[in-house]
Amino acid sequence: MADQDTPRITNGGVVGQVDATKIARYGGVATFALLPRLDEVQTADIAVVGIPFDAGVSYRPGARFGPSHVRESSRLLRPYNPELNISPFASQQVADAGDIATNPFDIEAALESIESSYQKLLQRAKKVIAIGGDHTITLGILRALKAKHGPISVIHFDAHLDTWDSYFGAEFTHGTTFRRASEEGLLDPQGCIHIGIRGPLYAPSNLDDDKALGFQILSAVAIEELGLSAASEQMSKRVGNKPVYLSIDIDVLDPAHAPGTGTPEAGGLTSRELLQLIRVCKNFNVVGGDVVEVAPAYDHAQVTGIAASHCIYEMLSAMAK
Amino acid sequence: MADQDTPRITNGGVVGQVDATKIARYGGVATFALLPRLDEVQTADIAVVGIPFDAGVSYRPGARFGPSHVRESSRLLRPYNPELNISPFASQQVADAGDIATNPFDIEAALESIESSYQKLLQRAKKVIAIGGDHTITLGILRALKAKHGPISVIHFDAHLDTWDSYFGAEFTHGTTFRRASEEGLLDPQGCIHIGIRGPLYAPSNLDDDKALGFQILSAVAIEELGLSAASEQMSKRVGNKPVYLSIDIDVLDPAHAPGTGTPEAGGLTSRELLQLIRVCKNFNVVGGDVVEVAPAYDHAQVTGIAASHCIYEMLSAMAK
Amino acid sequence: MADQDTPRITNGGVVGQVDATKIARYGGVATFALLPRLDEVQTADIAVVGIPFDAGVSYRPGARFGPSHVRESSRLLRPYNPELNISPFASQQVADAGDIATNPFDIEAALESIESSYQKLLQRAKKVIAIGGDHTITLGILRALKAKHGPISVIHFDAHLDTWDSYFGAEFTHGTTFRRASEEGLLDPQGCIHIGIRGPLYAPSNLDDDKALGFQILSAVAIEELGLSAASEQMSKRVGNKPVYLSIDIDVLDPAHAPGTGTPEAGGLTSRELLQLIRVCKNFNVVGGDVVEVAPAYDHAQVTGIAASHCIYEMLSAMAK
Amino acid sequence: MADQDTPRITNGGVVGQVDATKIARYGGVATFALLPRLDEVQTADIAVVGIPFDAGVSYRPGARFGPSHVRESSRLLRPYNPELNISPFASQQVADAGDIATNPFDIEAALESIESSYQKLLQRAKKVIAIGGDHTITLGILRALKAKHGPISVIHFDAHLDTWDSYFGAEFTHGTTFRRASEEGLLDPQGCIHIGIRGPLYAPSNLDDDKALGFQILSAVAIEELGLSAASEQMSKRVGNKPVYLSIDIDVLDPAHAPGTGTPEAGGLTSRELLQLIRVCKNFNVVGGDVVEVAPAYDHAQVTGIAASHCIYEMLSAMAK
Amino acid sequence: MADQDTPRITNGGVVGQVDATKIARYGGVATFALLPRLDEVQTADIAVVGIPFDAGVSYRPGARFGPSHVRESSRLLRPYNPELNISPFASQQVADAGDIATNPFDIEAALESIESSYQKLLQRAKKVIAIGGDHTITLGILRALKAKHGPISVIHFDAHLDTWDSYFGAEFTHGTTFRRASEEGLLDPQGCIHIGIRGPLYAPSNLDDDKALGFQILSAVAIEELGLSAASEQMSKRVGNKPVYLSIDIDVLDPAHAPGTGTPEAGGLTSRELLQLIRVCKNFNVVGGDVVEVAPAYDHAQVTGIAASHCIYEMLSAMAK
Amino acid sequence: MADQDTPRITNGGVVGQVDATKIARYGGVATFALLPRLDEVQTADIAVVGIPFDAGVSYRPGARFGPSHVRESSRLLRPYNPELNISPFASQQVADAGDIATNPFDIEAALESIESSYQKLLQRAKKVIAIGGDHTITLGILRALKAKHGPISVIHFDAHLDTWDSYFGAEFTHGTTFRRASEEGLLDPQGCIHIGIRGPLYAPSNLDDDKALGFQILSAVAIEELGLSAASEQMSKRVGNKPVYLSIDIDVLDPAHAPGTGTPEAGGLTSRELLQLIRVCKNFNVVGGDVVEVAPAYDHAQVTGIAASHCIYEMLSAMAK
Repeated sequence: MADQDTPRITNGGVVGQVDATKIARYGGVATFALLPRLDEVQTADIAVVGIPFDAGVSYRPGARFGPSHVRESSRLLRPYNPELNISPFASQQVADAGDIATNPFDIEAALESIESSYQKLLQRAKKVIAIGGDHTITLGILRALKAKHGPISVIHFDAHLDTWDSYFGAEFTHGTTFRRASEEGLLDPQGCIHIGIRGPLYAPSNLDDDKALGFQILSAVAIEELGLSAASEQMSKRVGNKPVYLSIDIDVLDPAHAPGTGTPEAGGLTSRELLQLIRVCKNFNVVGGDVVEVAPAYDHAQVTGIAASHCIYEMLSAMAK
Repeated sequence: MADQDTPRITNGGVVGQVDATKIARYGGVATFALLPRLDEVQTADIAVVGIPFDAGVSYRPGARFGPSHVRESSRLLRPYNPELNISPFASQQVADAGDIATNPFDIEAALESIESSYQKLLQRAKKVIAIGGDHTITLGILRALKAKHGPISVIHFDAHLDTWDSYFGAEFTHGTTFRRASEEGLLDPQGCIHIGIRGPLYAPSNLDDDKALGFQILSAVAIEELGLSAASEQMSKRVGNKPVYLSIDIDVLDPAHAPGTGTPEAGGLTSRELLQLIRVCKNFNVVGGDVVEVAPAYDHAQVTGIAASHCIYEMLSAMAK
Repeated sequence: MADQDTPRITNGGVVGQVDATKIARYGGVATFALLPRLDEVQTADIAVVGIPFDAGVSYRPGARFGPSHVRESSRLLRPYNPELNISPFASQQVADAGDIATNPFDIEAALESIESSYQKLLQRAKKVIAIGGDHTITLGILRALKAKHGPISVIHFDAHLDTWDSYFGAEFTHGTTFRRASEEGLLDPQGCIHIGIRGPLYAPSNLDDDKALGFQILSAVAIEELGLSAASEQMSKRVGNKPVYLSIDIDVLDPAHAPGTGTPEAGGLTSRELLQLIRVCKNFNVVGGDVVEVAPAYDHAQVTGIAASHCIYEMLSAMAK
Repeated sequence: MADQDTPRITNGGVVGQVDATKIARYGGVATFALLPRLDEVQTADIAVVGIPFDAGVSYRPGARFGPSHVRESSRLLRPYNPELNISPFASQQVADAGDIATNPFDIEAALESIESSYQKLLQRAKKVIAIGGDHTITLGILRALKAKHGPISVIHFDAHLDTWDSYFGAEFTHGTTFRRASEEGLLDPQGCIHIGIRGPLYAPSNLDDDKALGFQILSAVAIEELGLSAASEQMSKRVGNKPVYLSIDIDVLDPAHAPGTGTPEAGGLTSRELLQLIRVCKNFNVVGGDVVEVAPAYDHAQVTGIAASHCIYEMLSAMAK
Repeated sequence: MADQDTPRITNGGVVGQVDATKIARYGGVATFALLPRLDEVQTADIAVVGIPFDAGVSYRPGARFGPSHVRESSRLLRPYNPELNISPFASQQVADAGDIATNPFDIEAALESIESSYQKLLQRAKKVIAIGGDHTITLGILRALKAKHGPISVIHFDAHLDTWDSYFGAEFTHGTTFRRASEEGLLDPQGCIHIGIRGPLYAPSNLDDDKALGFQILSAVAIEELGLSAASEQMSKRVGNKPVYLSIDIDVLDPAHAPGTGTPEAGGLTSRELLQLIRVCKNFNVVGGDVVEVAPAYDHAQVTGIAASHCIYEMLSAMAK
Repeated sequence: MADQDTPRITNGGVVGQVDATKIARYGGVATFALLPRLDEVQTADIAVVGIPFDAGVSYRPGARFGPSHVRESSRLLRPYNPELNISPFASQQVADAGDIATNPFDIEAALESIESSYQKLLQRAKKVIAIGGDHTITLGILRALKAKHGPISVIHFDAHLDTWDSYFGAEFTHGTTFRRASEEGLLDPQGCIHIGIRGPLYAPSNLDDDKALGFQILSAVAIEELGLSAASEQMSKRVGNKPVYLSIDIDVLDPAHAPGTGTPEAGGLTSRELLQLIRVCKNFNVVGGDVVEVAPAYDHAQVTGIAASHCIYEMLSAMAK
């Protein structure tokens, strides 16, 4: 049952954002984009859910505060997306499903509860966009999606490959997500691509391993050289019409555009480039997505949070009918 | 209807905080102290409500973001107050009533909606604690309380008197609240006291005017000289058993303890002193309260937000049965 | 009468900056670019004036501190502009006219005093560049310019259209400036253009309304796609040799380049792009300009203030003979 | 073998700080107080060691960066302590032992390596002062000290009791250290005391449990009421001449004095009070100590780091012959 | 000639602050406390002058930006001081004399220009209060005052003695000011006192040397133990009715109260204590004063700048007739 | 003798970084990239050395803290550079030589000690990369290199020319380095180029002087217009196969990418552009390099420090066999 006091924009049966002409955007509780809570609308086309977990981090922790920070940074989002000529909150029911509770100390237990909570959430929402948390969470999500879609493509925006093997004996960390996912058969080896990769690696073999796991690489340097159009084409060619998951590590952005993250690397994408690449995904069969690794303690003036909230907005637009 | 998924601490029929042993404190939406929303529990003994309004500010604006910042800074508050040996969320139903919407441009219109919304809120909650917003909001609140209690005492923690007359032709600003309140007959002229006053004034007549309006002054310098016990006695003597409203401008704290505010003055109280003075109010007949002038853009590491949330916690404890 | 003690660079009768070889740039009072006060030189070709007003803001306030922040951030500007091969402080008398005082609470009263003070200022300075303050101030300026120039072209650098209709019953806010200006006949409907627009809107009709009010749009995405040369040509074609006003909302820059602003949107221009687009305006008949929406409380290390001060420097250069 | 190039202050065979009259304090690698590395002097009376571990944190993480931050913040410490009339780096060999490596993901494995590394370190240094890291690390240390001293007294400076039982099934976290230590027989139940306790608890039973585990409480409020002298006496009385370990959670300080920490509570001690209470410990038989919970991402201008480094300086002085 | 456009508070022939009821305090150029420039009033009882010099700094530089920061932080100061019942801008003409230009690279040349500019300034102002800059500047000032007053008393508020001998061969630095002053016969050896001293020294001999140079010490620890009244008495007894100079190194405050400084030491004074100690000086024959070592790059929300501006305000009050 | 306890990556006789699979990257002392100290390996192919000197700065000081900040910001660098397919720490011995001590007050004395220390260092390391410190230090370095290589080419990345003549009588400052170097015959007048120049100059003659001193200019605007490929070609053509020194003033980056610097100018390079331009230098005969003007007090979340550390990483890669 919806909170009856809150004036909202509605479109047919779709309940949208708080009506900002009645309640100023800085007022009220910050659900994502001031959308209704899932318990207000019961079911949704797309649920936005937070997964405040960061025990898989190898350097700067703090992404556990990512969901609340991204929500607070999403208050300015308005209903109509002119670039895609879409009203993502009117043509589909989007709702904020709150946060998935996880064990803060035990990574494997956390992954299990992420998987099961995500599956439970899929009973109420056709698709889900997650706000991390660190990149470990994506493994739990991909496990849940496997049950529904089989192996899927992943478009992975990141400075890092995240296909390392283990770290201090831990198999499941924010740096091993896509190796585990590949090993567990969650990925379509013909349809995965990393975008924005840059910075030093451990060894040349990292690249061979990565390729063997089913990934193509479109590096940050390549994007500078190719330009956005050619880069978009390469992405499109890789993904085709396969079911695809969008996973955005906010450190794909240059530290100037995303200081609030845990393992920053110089030489990254601009937010303008990243948003444009997400818009291209409207042509794909997107089955879910996430934005991870926002670490608010290192952010300034919500620069990182705003970039992250815009990424989710473009994902929601790209997924709209 | 309460959100059924959220595990909560309960005590008889009283619904308390999210159970932090099941959902880590950094997770989920930040209601004040992770308490239930008022719409989850229908009625309450005390409602905490935000009033995100700052158009009455004469210097640094930004207190419109105060309510969400104080809520985010209240996640660590736990259920039992050892200093007063009270469990403020178990012995009384406390709930978060969200924010009162106001016109961001028209001060008088805003005061009217604050008054009417507050009165409406009093139908669901016996008492209310407000999070500002700037100090202008207190006038709307005192008007609403007048209808219920007649003229009341005010314990006013602040660096400033807030009994100036007008500013740029505006009668209603954050610096004129208590003059207007006195003129409108909202105050008991035998029971009002300013605590923590310091810093330069406009003229010696400010002090005479203030006295004529019904206020005593217990300055920051006097608190240093007298010590907390004697200061508490003076406060108690002034208030007696009259109905009393607690209005805390966070700039009563020294800028070291509350950098995130709009008109900071050096030489203020420590948070330890302020919290202790609030605890003394458990002996009074407190009918409501507020914490105002938290301007998050100037805060660092939630130092100001945490101090403000502790003030509310101690007020809630002082008001508990 | 000029302050005789201060060593200054002079060129014929033109009084320029403090001589930085005699007084280090971090010393002395920060007039814009360390130029003389208008009262020191009596009249000027161009006056730089602050308008510290932000009551028209709908989200983060604080642009009232913009003028002093931009001045402090302008200390490093030197006399010769190699890109345009111009010495903007030698070929014309530029002076700092201080700030226009406005009512901080009453928007319409403020607009009136901006208009009248600006007109009075035009008696001492041929042209004026204003430092905001929020974008509301531009309406007062355009009213003053109407009297002198009739309807004029506007090149409007901004993330937002600022042609909304009203907000909370307020007709005059930072989001309605150009709709009001159009309705009041202040604009040449064949010569106005928005540059850098991006981010979500309220509805598709916003675009139609905007067009009807006389604006073309050159979006941030279009600039990425077209490149600066083609974008410059489109701007030139729109403006031709009409009298043109340059209005720069600093949020046209990406939040990475301008964190210190009130309604930041990801995906914006770089400072390098913006400065280059301003340089193109040397070919136009520029009759005035402004830089608005610098909110220092959200700035870091003067990044935003420095960008703003460089914008003014390029405007002054573009306006130089 | 010592690095022969570095000019150092020496006293007999004791190798002290880098000679700041030859190398300015901001130069060179930041060992604690610019003291020699342990490998330069082979053995020491006291070793300062970092333990960069924070997987036991329940709220804001980041104390893993504590050791490097405290070292960087210790560059200004000079050789002579006038309050105690002691030269702590001349009368005893103090050296920086670097950091103890731990598993960042597995708390129990980390505790084991802390214990074993600490014991190994005790073969080269008579006593050790540790820089955390979160408060979990103290359990590893107390286990190592048990082998040498049997059950010992602990003077525990903290806002929190840290005697909770478990959290999300984890027995070993920063909130359970002293319960586990008591259960494991590491503590002298007649000689332990918490100093600076404040803020809400989970339940009244927390206090009973704490007492049963062998702790006295000297709260922050009590210190305000008693004054430092009486508080010191209570501390002295509790400890007597037992072997005592000093464990300082930096959140014992008010957030104004220590914003850079993970679970801040308003109403804390000033740094002046804390340093004075540490000085009193010169009368005790101090066998080791730590300063934990410095989370640099939340610090500003090294305020927290400087306070922490001064705490260690006073501990070293109190332990000097 | 005064700027005729600016509305000002006047009292007889005394020209005071900008009238804040006509121009909001955030508007206009920031002279100290929005007082007139000295060139507007020709002569003054007290001139406030900036000396933006920091080449004598041994650790964190940046005090060169102190004068502009303290002025920006002084906008809120109002005309009447209730603690001393004085209107310091009405009973005496106070004016802002701008900044003294110095060589940024050559310390001795800078000292000479400080001395000569200060003497020149004394021809237009009876007394001067300087805003540093680092503590080196005080030597230039004391040399200038020697010519007028002979050897004088100094009340020196500081964490440090500043009576070291030399550093890297430099005789004149911020750490040697009072040794040089004593050697040059600028000080009355019976009337000098350091207040707020704390933190480690180089050697016990520092204390003996300091005493031999004519200083008493009232340490920060002693102030905690004695209380403000007894401390004030000790200060009064030392100074008597000698001509006295007040030199305030802002690091006398605890880093919580003054993070924005170059050599911070934990355990300092609160701003409330410092302001009260300055007020005591109204009983003395104060012939000048300074506030030095404000390094804005390390400040937050003007906390340090506000404390410094209040110190100057209390000095001006203490010096008022 | 190497510290035997630290696990390290080795390759034949080459000692590399701390093994991050055994010690997490946030642990241990921050040498550059966690490489061995020079005293651990005795000799090196390339030494990285800090020169913490900033007395030559004309605006914001603080680069004296640059070396420790860049080292702390270099912890994430990994061993393999995929863009150049090089392992810069395996194919050559790189070591951290600590800091060169300089006089903090006397520029000429500092230059002498930089020159002599650098020459001494060249006896143990074939090549050196320096971390500033301000740009003054490069003169000392170029003097030392003259002895070895004769006049050399310089690729100078900077917003500023640094070929001014003198400032306040000082011949040796951060703005005069390359004029002095040219005058002293240290430069090959056919092989020097400035890259990234932008912002206002003092006079048109600056450009003529600069050309006469032997420099070409590739401005920031030109890089935007030409693109990276053409810009790289111009750079290559200028340098050919001459011995070349790379001098990177971090302010060549836009303030968005490098807020932490002393004389920021809007309109700069992105970190992606800068890193790519450094990579081109693998084709040159690079004989040394530096990264200067990192002023940590103005940095945020190590954005500037990380960019600087990546610049050094690419230089090391470009210099690798």
